[in-house]
Amino acid sequence: MNEHNVVFQPGNVVVAVQEGSTLKETMNDAGLAFDFLCGGRGTCGKCRVRITRGLTSPLTKEEEMLEANELNEGFRLACLTTVQHDLIVELPNQKSLQHNILIASEERVFQLEPHFHKVFLEVDKPSREAQSSDWLRLKESLIQKGYQDRALGASISVLRQMPDVLRGANHQITAVMYESNVAGIELRDSTQTMLGMAFDIGTTTIVGYLLDLYSGEELSVVSTLNPQTSYGADVISRLTFAGHEENGLTKLQDAVIEAINQLISQAVEKVSLTKSQIYGISIAGNTCMHHILLGINPQSIAVSPYVPALSETLVLDASELQININPAGKVFMLPNIAGFVGADTVAVLLSTELDRSEDIKLVIDIGTNGEIALGSREKIVACSAAAGPAFEGAQISSGMRGAVGAIDHVYYRDTLEYSVIGGGEPLGICGSALLDTVAGLVELGIINKRGKILDLEQVTNPAAQRFKENLIQFEGQGAFLLADSSITGHGRAIMITQSDIRELQMAKGAMAAGVRILLETYGIQAQDIKEVLLAGAFGNYLTPHSACVIGLIPFELENRIKMIGNAAGTGSKLALLSSSEFRRAEAIAQGVKFVELGSYPKFNKIFGECTYFTIN
Amino acid sequence: MNEHNVVFQPGNVVVAVQEGSTLKETMNDAGLAFDFLCGGRGTCGKCRVRITRGLTSPLTKEEEMLEANELNEGFRLACLTTVQHDLIVELPNQKSLQHNILIASEERVFQLEPHFHKVFLEVDKPSREAQSSDWLRLKESLIQKGYQDRALGASISVLRQMPDVLRGANHQITAVMYESNVAGIELRDSTQTMLGMAFDIGTTTIVGYLLDLYSGEELSVVSTLNPQTSYGADVISRLTFAGHEENGLTKLQDAVIEAINQLISQAVEKVSLTKSQIYGISIAGNTCMHHILLGINPQSIAVSPYVPALSETLVLDASELQININPAGKVFMLPNIAGFVGADTVAVLLSTELDRSEDIKLVIDIGTNGEIALGSREKIVACSAAAGPAFEGAQISSGMRGAVGAIDHVYYRDTLEYSVIGGGEPLGICGSALLDTVAGLVELGIINKRGKILDLEQVTNPAAQRFKENLIQFEGQGAFLLADSSITGHGRAIMITQSDIRELQMAKGAMAAGVRILLETYGIQAQDIKEVLLAGAFGNYLTPHSACVIGLIPFELENRIKMIGNAAGTGSKLALLSSSEFRRAEAIAQGVKFVELGSYPKFNKIFGECTYFTIN
Repeated sequence: MNEHNVVFQPGNVVVAVQEGSTLKETMNDAGLAFDFLCGGRGTCGKCRVRITRGLTSPLTKEEEMLEANELNEGFRLACLTTVQHDLIVELPNQKSLQHNILIASEERVFQLEPHFHKVFLEVDKPSREAQSSDWLRLKESLIQKGYQDRALGASISVLRQMPDVLRGANHQITAVMYESNVAGIELRDSTQTMLGMAFDIGTTTIVGYLLDLYSGEELSVVSTLNPQTSYGADVISRLTFAGHEENGLTKLQDAVIEAINQLISQAVEKVSLTKSQIYGISIAGNTCMHHILLGINPQSIAVSPYVPALSETLVLDASELQININPAGKVFMLPNIAGFVGADTVAVLLSTELDRSEDIKLVIDIGTNGEIALGSREKIVACSAAAGPAFEGAQISSGMRGAVGAIDHVYYRDTLEYSVIGGGEPLGICGSALLDTVAGLVELGIINKRGKILDLEQVTNPAAQRFKENLIQFEGQGAFLLADSSITGHGRAIMITQSDIRELQMAKGAMAAGVRILLETYGIQAQDIKEVLLAGAFGNYLTPHSACVIGLIPFELENRIKMIGNAAGTGSKLALLSSSEFRRAEAIAQGVKFVELGSYPKFNKIFGECTYFTIN
Repeated sequence: MNEHNVVFQPGNVVVAVQEGSTLKETMNDAGLAFDFLCGGRGTCGKCRVRITRGLTSPLTKEEEMLEANELNEGFRLACLTTVQHDLIVELPNQKSLQHNILIASEERVFQLEPHFHKVFLEVDKPSREAQSSDWLRLKESLIQKGYQDRALGASISVLRQMPDVLRGANHQITAVMYESNVAGIELRDSTQTMLGMAFDIGTTTIVGYLLDLYSGEELSVVSTLNPQTSYGADVISRLTFAGHEENGLTKLQDAVIEAINQLISQAVEKVSLTKSQIYGISIAGNTCMHHILLGINPQSIAVSPYVPALSETLVLDASELQININPAGKVFMLPNIAGFVGADTVAVLLSTELDRSEDIKLVIDIGTNGEIALGSREKIVACSAAAGPAFEGAQISSGMRGAVGAIDHVYYRDTLEYSVIGGGEPLGICGSALLDTVAGLVELGIINKRGKILDLEQVTNPAAQRFKENLIQFEGQGAFLLADSSITGHGRAIMITQSDIRELQMAKGAMAAGVRILLETYGIQAQDIKEVLLAGAFGNYLTPHSACVIGLIPFELENRIKMIGNAAGTGSKLALLSSSEFRRAEAIAQGVKFVELGSYPKFNKIFGECTYFTIN
């Protein structure tokens, strides 16, 4: 087989690949982080790249998915195009892959209680009269500091370092204690610094917070696209990849660990510190991310009855996962609740202290899999709702993520107005704008209860007439135009089609059904809920009124909605900064009653009803 | 630099080496196990090989160490000869490197109490109604078997296997429990077999015993030369190698671990079992062997105040040391007492139950470093005596190890008689014969109190006249001929020279001084000792009467001497078969009072007196 060179621009990344490789495989080989929304199945049409030099494979179904002028300009889909010659490939502006990350600014009271303690020791030197071993003398000095002899232990790597560290430091050392174990020993007095890093491993985005474990101070924040995205956009495609590709699990695990290691390097470089000063990292992520990071086969999540392999907290040596921090470092894995209610939800609950709340609250993290929890200190119930990717802009004709160029909010004023993330020409709409658009159409009566776009003649509300121009036909179906091709960044119109509304109905129906079933399970009415807490990026972008108009959230709760930012990240920080909060996370995970929607009586009937738009 | 090929025979092992490499280095490269008694310093003259083709480096001090006819026949010393051309090298009969190993046949009552428990579990299958995680359900079934929830844990490798093992075995599995930890899980019911292997890692010889952990039955015994011997014959040369050679410690560690893995394979093959059925191995060895096996720098043992890095018991995952047994397997390291009183001595004390003895006993393991312990259940004192290698036949003109061809016992009857190991022509004398010979000469009055061989005219005992022919002059000193060159296997005379007697005096003086100082420390007289227990290969070969005549053991104890075989191996077995015996080993190690001879008041005077031959 021949090899060809492929040059990716910008950046001039050169990769040699076998003839016949797809551009997607080539980009994966090159380690280029790119978002294959459909996992490279050629169905989403989002992986457009431009071939600026060289010949490619003949067109396949790209002909249906790209415009004629795009094809003429050399645009192709990376997942469908194979390499036949040397190529130069232009990637879309990498900026659009950067995500806006919200950080919680909540005051959350907790006790700083590091997992590690550093103890400076002046170990007795041996003499011919006192010939006890290095380890016995080291233990002796720990006992003088109040540790119990019986419990004291050390790993073999510490024992291996010990003779040289003791003698290299004139017997003045710092012991890094994890519980009763000497996790590490360091030359002289290094008790001044002890850093940690809290991670929120999202399916799409990984965020890391560098923290001072003594003060709790946040020193830097870093984030990156989860590189597993190259293998599939959502949890289901990752599960499929892990289960069916050769070494799929290992590839996914390696990818996330490499990303974590890169973020660690970036975070410490930002503030001129070093990786070796980091002793602990905490991990919050959904159950699939959790299992993959640990190298545990997540297949049982994928098939009924969707059980996780592990739901409890776990503490591991960082070296066991090849995570590059101090050799004494540990990884603190937050616990899961169920196959689709993971450690990220536990982190959210920990951050909101739902387990100690006197009032009943509803906590919602909207996403492809929406997690919903309802409860108070009395009890908590939770479920996962398979909303699908509509809220993230996928499977929506003009949809995109909440990135630069996305219309994020829509206002029905005298004319239709909207805002664009980054302020430039619009490229598509993200989930929050989808909600605004549809909610407006519902309020105007342009969409009926069942979600159908009506002919304008059928609409009784006179205000609807203002948007006559926006109501168009597109490819044989009704549509609502937001921006015509003359003003968009790519020259294509941005609109909401009837199909898009159907997608949204499925998504919001799933979420609303989840809320209704939790209320039934709990035995309360919507109005008994004192507060609705919206977590996660999408929850923080949406317009609460729109969410209530379309019935995503019960209408009567509109004024009780509160956005709580990246609460999963906050929970991860708490678990890192306080060992009692870490234990509390375990108690929360064990205390939550998981409700499996699919096996709930009359689920399909409830779901069907919840897809309707019914304004009280 | 040029490369040359060296072919070793028998076996036709071909090695390519840089010009100028010594034959010793070449043999080490080739992995040929060979006994360099002096560590390759060119002082013992024992590494004779024969060059059958090719030219070698010019003679150096070999001219003094080899006979003219040997030089003519092509004999050279491997440590002094460098490779200048392609060579064919004939190695001495490898059979002579095989050692006779003694196995204790003692009845030692103990409680079988395996470190591991295997539990067959029928784990609940998950359902949509019971969606708890694999690990929670597995724990649940352990709790039903009486385990405590709070304490239960599992390693990450077990968690990784768990989903597939559960589903692969229809949820019928066997958990291998180590304390409250699930160390391994296996398909279906594997509770029938659980094997372990007890090791005695000697400086020279490694012995392994394959045991059934349920019945305690010994299934097979295997042994090999410690391959570290290639890097030096004794502890001191190993310490030097570890400290001064690049990657010296790693080379020594790798060598012993490879030997252990080979012995494991051999042991199970002998009885048609598999390595994966082995769950635990126990290790008894001196402090240097102990540290090297763990990869802990043993330098602190080498320099005053000679402290070990670690003296306590240690349990490690076998995988951490790359020891190939069941993935759940553990390594049980017996504890040390001091830098030169190691886990082998602890194993001997464990096997003899000195810690529970009503009577005061003296336990002696004679070797290059002789270990001596004295005590009862009231208290135990111990020391290490630097006897040097004379007891092992090194530094003795006709000396050799207790291998095939060695004269092992000498009898002064009407004529001089002797026995030879293996029964053939004699090749040299081993330590036990050295004792017999010198003891006889002392009793005949041929050697005086100070160790001098007298002229026969000076000898008053008429019986001495019978051995007139044996008293010869050799290279300007008095000597006692055991076998003349016509009847030996190599055509050289076998004798004891005045220098040999001096070597023996140093060796026995060191041991006797140790005994005397322990008696003084304990505050008793020799006659208070009820039993003298001789451990180890040499202790089991020597003639008690001879040992007492030369003053190695106090004369009044001759009838209280008992040979206890490879008591270190027995102790290792006990620690493997019984977790309470393993804990007891730790208590013994901590309870023994170590006496440092070098810093004992008037040590030199006592040692000097002890070199004399004084028959009561």
